[in-house]
Amino acid sequence: MNLEKTIRSIENHPKEGIVFRDITTLLQDKDSFKEAVDVMAEKIGPDVDKIVGIEARGFIFASALAYKLNKGFIPVRKPGKLPFDKISESYSLEYGEDSIEIHVDAINKGDKVAIVDDLLATGGTAKASVNLIEKLGGEIEVVLFLIELIDLKGRELLEGQNVKSIIKY
Amino acid sequence: MNLEKTIRSIENHPKEGIVFRDITTLLQDKDSFKEAVDVMAEKIGPDVDKIVGIEARGFIFASALAYKLNKGFIPVRKPGKLPFDKISESYSLEYGEDSIEIHVDAINKGDKVAIVDDLLATGGTAKASVNLIEKLGGEIEVVLFLIELIDLKGRELLEGQNVKSIIKY
Repeated sequence: MNLEKTIRSIENHPKEGIVFRDITTLLQDKDSFKEAVDVMAEKIGPDVDKIVGIEARGFIFASALAYKLNKGFIPVRKPGKLPFDKISESYSLEYGEDSIEIHVDAINKGDKVAIVDDLLATGGTAKASVNLIEKLGGEIEVVLFLIELIDLKGRELLEGQNVKSIIKY
Repeated sequence: MNLEKTIRSIENHPKEGIVFRDITTLLQDKDSFKEAVDVMAEKIGPDVDKIVGIEARGFIFASALAYKLNKGFIPVRKPGKLPFDKISESYSLEYGEDSIEIHVDAINKGDKVAIVDDLLATGGTAKASVNLIEKLGGEIEVVLFLIELIDLKGRELLEGQNVKSIIKY
């Protein structure tokens, strides 16, 4: 299957000149969703302990991958969502900054971790996730995306990490 | 396995007198996460076309279930998150109201649907999701939760639906 064909491109969204890559058309097709998860699972392999998903679309792939590979699922969430003791990391937005959080007991020292999100754009949230996991002593085996927007150079921000993506624009 | 034991209860969160049921401890344990998904999958059965997950924690179970059962995954999202044509439904909060959205092409007329979320409390978001899917002509086979907070009577708001839950408090 050509997974790329199941992604809907929406011109001028969220603003003029931007082509938004809409994965909901991939997700709602059972065969393309299954294939996307299977292909991503191959990129992770069996040698990790935990799959980290970045809120919110990252949850969709990370949890299916955690189920398929029989690993623990760890949510990295937007501020104020996690109820237990947590650490926080900021990242830059086009205007201003935002932050993400992880529970302090989500990762044990030495845990092998795959970080998963749907899309690599500038890499800000992924880099913040890397920092959170390293603070907790986790070892990041792979940072995996379904889609990579090459021109935005998120890979450069993630230098030193094993970055993988399935579909490149 | 006693799944309930893997859920962390946090006293007085988010406010005095409330016991918050934290599922992150279940999710991060590979065996309890797998068992939760497997038990939920049995409650859905094979006779649905699509699994609808309610943002954000509902995504975690709904996507793993969609993968396991080989069904399409449909996100119901908070306002402003979905990029294509969509419909919206409001629901009441303790103070004020909020709304959720679904893409107009997410459900075909006659699709058999399972709605999935982590927690049934007052049932507001689940009821709004029911309304969205019925507006699109979907047939709701089951509304499934990992956890049900009995005292909040969400089941009453969902009267007429086939409501199922795994863990009851």
